[in-house]
Amino acid sequence: MIISMRLHATKEEVDGVCERIQEFGYKVHTIQGEERVVIGAVGMGDVTACLESLQAMPGVENAVRISAPYKFVSREFQPGRSVIRVNGTEIGGAEFVVMAGPCSVESERQIMETAEAVARLGGRILRGGAFKPRTSPYDFQGMEVEGLKLLRKAKEATGLAIVTEVMSDGDVELIAEYADLLQIGARNMQNFALLKSLGRAGRPILLKRGMSSTIKELLMSAEYIVAHGNPNVILCERGIRTFETETRNTCDLTAVAVLNELTHLPVVVDPSHATGRRSLVPPLSRAAVAVGADGLLIEVHPTPEKAISDGAQSLTISQFGAMMQELAPYVELWKRGRVEGGL
Amino acid sequence: MIISMRLHATKEEVDGVCERIQEFGYKVHTIQGEERVVIGAVGMGDVTACLESLQAMPGVENAVRISAPYKFVSREFQPGRSVIRVNGTEIGGAEFVVMAGPCSVESERQIMETAEAVARLGGRILRGGAFKPRTSPYDFQGMEVEGLKLLRKAKEATGLAIVTEVMSDGDVELIAEYADLLQIGARNMQNFALLKSLGRAGRPILLKRGMSSTIKELLMSAEYIVAHGNPNVILCERGIRTFETETRNTCDLTAVAVLNELTHLPVVVDPSHATGRRSLVPPLSRAAVAVGADGLLIEVHPTPEKAISDGAQSLTISQFGAMMQELAPYVELWKRGRVEGGL
Amino acid sequence: MIISMRLHATKEEVDGVCERIQEFGYKVHTIQGEERVVIGAVGMGDVTACLESLQAMPGVENAVRISAPYKFVSREFQPGRSVIRVNGTEIGGAEFVVMAGPCSVESERQIMETAEAVARLGGRILRGGAFKPRTSPYDFQGMEVEGLKLLRKAKEATGLAIVTEVMSDGDVELIAEYADLLQIGARNMQNFALLKSLGRAGRPILLKRGMSSTIKELLMSAEYIVAHGNPNVILCERGIRTFETETRNTCDLTAVAVLNELTHLPVVVDPSHATGRRSLVPPLSRAAVAVGADGLLIEVHPTPEKAISDGAQSLTISQFGAMMQELAPYVELWKRGRVEGGL
Amino acid sequence: MIISMRLHATKEEVDGVCERIQEFGYKVHTIQGEERVVIGAVGMGDVTACLESLQAMPGVENAVRISAPYKFVSREFQPGRSVIRVNGTEIGGAEFVVMAGPCSVESERQIMETAEAVARLGGRILRGGAFKPRTSPYDFQGMEVEGLKLLRKAKEATGLAIVTEVMSDGDVELIAEYADLLQIGARNMQNFALLKSLGRAGRPILLKRGMSSTIKELLMSAEYIVAHGNPNVILCERGIRTFETETRNTCDLTAVAVLNELTHLPVVVDPSHATGRRSLVPPLSRAAVAVGADGLLIEVHPTPEKAISDGAQSLTISQFGAMMQELAPYVELWKRGRVEGGL
Repeated sequence: MIISMRLHATKEEVDGVCERIQEFGYKVHTIQGEERVVIGAVGMGDVTACLESLQAMPGVENAVRISAPYKFVSREFQPGRSVIRVNGTEIGGAEFVVMAGPCSVESERQIMETAEAVARLGGRILRGGAFKPRTSPYDFQGMEVEGLKLLRKAKEATGLAIVTEVMSDGDVELIAEYADLLQIGARNMQNFALLKSLGRAGRPILLKRGMSSTIKELLMSAEYIVAHGNPNVILCERGIRTFETETRNTCDLTAVAVLNELTHLPVVVDPSHATGRRSLVPPLSRAAVAVGADGLLIEVHPTPEKAISDGAQSLTISQFGAMMQELAPYVELWKRGRVEGGL
Repeated sequence: MIISMRLHATKEEVDGVCERIQEFGYKVHTIQGEERVVIGAVGMGDVTACLESLQAMPGVENAVRISAPYKFVSREFQPGRSVIRVNGTEIGGAEFVVMAGPCSVESERQIMETAEAVARLGGRILRGGAFKPRTSPYDFQGMEVEGLKLLRKAKEATGLAIVTEVMSDGDVELIAEYADLLQIGARNMQNFALLKSLGRAGRPILLKRGMSSTIKELLMSAEYIVAHGNPNVILCERGIRTFETETRNTCDLTAVAVLNELTHLPVVVDPSHATGRRSLVPPLSRAAVAVGADGLLIEVHPTPEKAISDGAQSLTISQFGAMMQELAPYVELWKRGRVEGGL
Repeated sequence: MIISMRLHATKEEVDGVCERIQEFGYKVHTIQGEERVVIGAVGMGDVTACLESLQAMPGVENAVRISAPYKFVSREFQPGRSVIRVNGTEIGGAEFVVMAGPCSVESERQIMETAEAVARLGGRILRGGAFKPRTSPYDFQGMEVEGLKLLRKAKEATGLAIVTEVMSDGDVELIAEYADLLQIGARNMQNFALLKSLGRAGRPILLKRGMSSTIKELLMSAEYIVAHGNPNVILCERGIRTFETETRNTCDLTAVAVLNELTHLPVVVDPSHATGRRSLVPPLSRAAVAVGADGLLIEVHPTPEKAISDGAQSLTISQFGAMMQELAPYVELWKRGRVEGGL
Repeated sequence: MIISMRLHATKEEVDGVCERIQEFGYKVHTIQGEERVVIGAVGMGDVTACLESLQAMPGVENAVRISAPYKFVSREFQPGRSVIRVNGTEIGGAEFVVMAGPCSVESERQIMETAEAVARLGGRILRGGAFKPRTSPYDFQGMEVEGLKLLRKAKEATGLAIVTEVMSDGDVELIAEYADLLQIGARNMQNFALLKSLGRAGRPILLKRGMSSTIKELLMSAEYIVAHGNPNVILCERGIRTFETETRNTCDLTAVAVLNELTHLPVVVDPSHATGRRSLVPPLSRAAVAVGADGLLIEVHPTPEKAISDGAQSLTISQFGAMMQELAPYVELWKRGRVEGGL
């Protein structure tokens, strides 16, 4: 920690701060500047509590942490990449993994038709919501258990692994019976009761970044899951909220490049939710491969114009096929980069 | 709904859109502009599903809703103000209500000393966290049930009502035994599983605005609670996330003025979390009274520099007393305005 | 400056950084933490250049400035408040000053009628745009010199001082002939060529905060003007750009409270541009007085529905009169607070 | 335009709005919904003035424009891509163009060494600031005319075209003598006096997006330049301001994909300013190629740790060479896509 004292802080104030730091078990280094005193605190202790206590003391301008607040998810803790296995598919390793499917499971026909197409066109994991977080209480809330059963059926027919969303700690056990990968939605990224319960879920987790969550907060939420016992976390960039109104969200590929420096966890991109517009999905998918993501999460629907939710951002099956073909040479470059360490 | 067609939309595309609208049970009005066709849809139906379906159709530029997506919480539904009773205190009525207390319950001595001071200095409701949402898994997570018991003790000693946070739908029943007002934190504003469970909580709700939630989303989350059976919702502005880094958040008093136009629900302001800095709490509290809020949520701690959490933004007891005195003439003006309808 | 080295920085990297710091004329203090080395640099020198150089060196995690980057405008430089005289009216002193008028000067009748009303109802300065910054090249760009002449006429008739906008360094001299206070619009807050030219303008400056400018950037832009020779700068909060779409901008009263701590310069609030909606102007004006602003900038128009620009946010003359009356007791409290030092 | 009336708007209010619309020369279409009246206005007229007038009328909920507010820069106006020639190099055509060089021209040796390397490694245009916009008045403000002369010398030695920044309408003529492409910085994107003067500059323009400017505002600023007589505008995405603090800005590649749909003007990306961190430049450059940008603007410096400005984000010459090599296969895919119409 580094503590800057105010311009005219008294000697008593400086001494008080030094004592408090020592009470928390740190060693003190004082720097007398031209204008003000700056104090360094070195050692191991409850950093957050210490910082908050110091910020409340008279004479303190501000107090900041120097080390990262997360540990297990940091590249400093584990320099190599984590490879997460989802029902046989490896994410974070030598393969670029495409997860695709409809926003919501709507009917047997819809999910079976989509699953068959996803498998045929090169996808490895089937997405589909059974429990849906909706802004309005009057919107379709998902097929719930019925939807989970249809997802299982699609898995049996195609061999695809299943990813679906969990919205409450009370549902983790149930959904873990059906799904291979548990998705935590953007609105629940800081639902700490839910995060804690995932430690014992026995399934890997796909953690979506909150719409206005910083990269550090995303890593702290991943740290919650890992610290509670589950090291298998995949991060997902799904668009952030900015001042821009042209698209629903802004797909933040900068975050992917930053995450690749800060963490060993895999990172995938969801360009469908990130933009809300079908035509933007292919260019941003190409860019996600190029920037060094580990995979994609794509919305596909056999008849988007009849979809109950998110039709405007869903690709048709033939558009998905065309995009997979267009992506192929970019994925080749990605693989070469992965081998050479360039990505 | 208003649907704008693309510049060169074909007649077939326009006809397709009109048919789809009619399938959803709406009547169609077509306007042939100089440059493009605009279609109006009138009637009652599943607006969200219809909009999403239309946005996915060929030839459609965009499709927007005209009516507000919320109903029960709207001023159009109920023109007069809602008055919510919390253990005898009325919020939204003729009194300006101050809720105060520490961020976390830390010890019997701390909470009893604070409660006594809050009651003596004019506060009506005691705040104090027992279950704490913390960004880091390594930070203090609250005293939990032990904290709830201390809050009850403080209530018995002072007569103050109790507000404390609920973080999971599994805890609602337990916490409702101890608290008079259930707080939903900013990070859980769109935890829909939790919102639904509040419909049957039997207690009024203090719903904090998410850090990056729009006013409309806040109202939609309130609508969830009301639609599930609990009309007693108090809204709370607690600072939004902006580009500014000088303060932790930006206290959005504009939102209070806007909410007073859109909804009949009471609105309170939490300037402590909104700014993160003790010295800013008094000026923003004055401004909150003047802009027309119904109350304040203030962090007070007997020894902020020893607080486990949020010390930097907590007032000392004597600072809280000075502020209450300074606020008094503003509250007088507020009452006069309330009577005359000016506020 | 405080420089944090990376986790595994080598001794050579640490030494390199220390040498570079000394080349810039600073003294070095090294703190050996448990995990990493942190270096303090103390003294006087070209901070920005030094920081940028250090950030580019191997082994450096980050390098931050401890002292504020502005000097003349800081409260640390001048603890008391600056009082700026505009044609006899003092801003920043014992009076709360209201500036009002139309967005654009449109006709002699419009500006004379407004000026007369503003003077009669308690305003002290007349606002009115002659050179207009418009997002679209096809929108009305102002009456230019003709508008300046009408403003002078209104001044002669009413005794009100005049504030109007300057958009280019080439126009400063011309406009300074007609105006008592030169307004720099939000979009030009970092037009450094213009800021520099204001140093020799011979008129006080009303500097509007950029829509997405931090408080620090606003102070740096004021510092430009002061450092180039003109100490008479009034700051203006006029709404910031956030994710919220309900209002045009978000009126940031938190910034006013923060500025009152950081600078001795007066701060006024423009609730008309900040919200874009007439009905929100009175509540936010009350709040601006209460938070401790030094004045207001209000749009008033005799017939807002016929205004060429910004009609939706302009008060009618009778609405302006009603608001001035409603504000009076708040201004009384403001004066009392000013005398007692509470504001 | 579409005008939604309030829920309980009177017949008189509806009639008043219809009359006003007709006064502006539009035809009226009224839609009577279940809950409220919606009015469509069709025809040609002063849209902005009409909208603002309507928004100020009693009974009006809101009034929105349906057509885009820009014309010349729109894809609807010119469906094919614009190709802009800069001293023989074509931007927006069949070649992917890299512009590179230091943030500021600092010395003859620095600029000559960089220019020679940029030319050798495949760059086509040399960047380098002579007039520098700096947040602080105490920072280096550029070598000014001396810098321009050095850029000309570098051009003569290498054949590279020159791009450099113009900060004031008074400098356009001078700088146009030395530069092949005039850069308008992010902070001047809405300096309308400057934009207007560029209409007669006789040079193509590189218009950088403001840090918090929407895509629509960027296009409106381009429209200013085109409407004043200069059709040769290249747009540049250089990072937007968000809540994220991990990087200086957020590189918005979504905007590139959106711009490619909305405008025929070329779009380049500046990943150096967009991220502020050298290590992020290569991954975001790959992504910029993949998303479909027309070129890159890269900061290169022979000795970044000695740079006067922006050292932390500058590549060394050898890093630039490595990146150009890494980009080559992505550029090959880009060219193939350009030919096939896929990009």
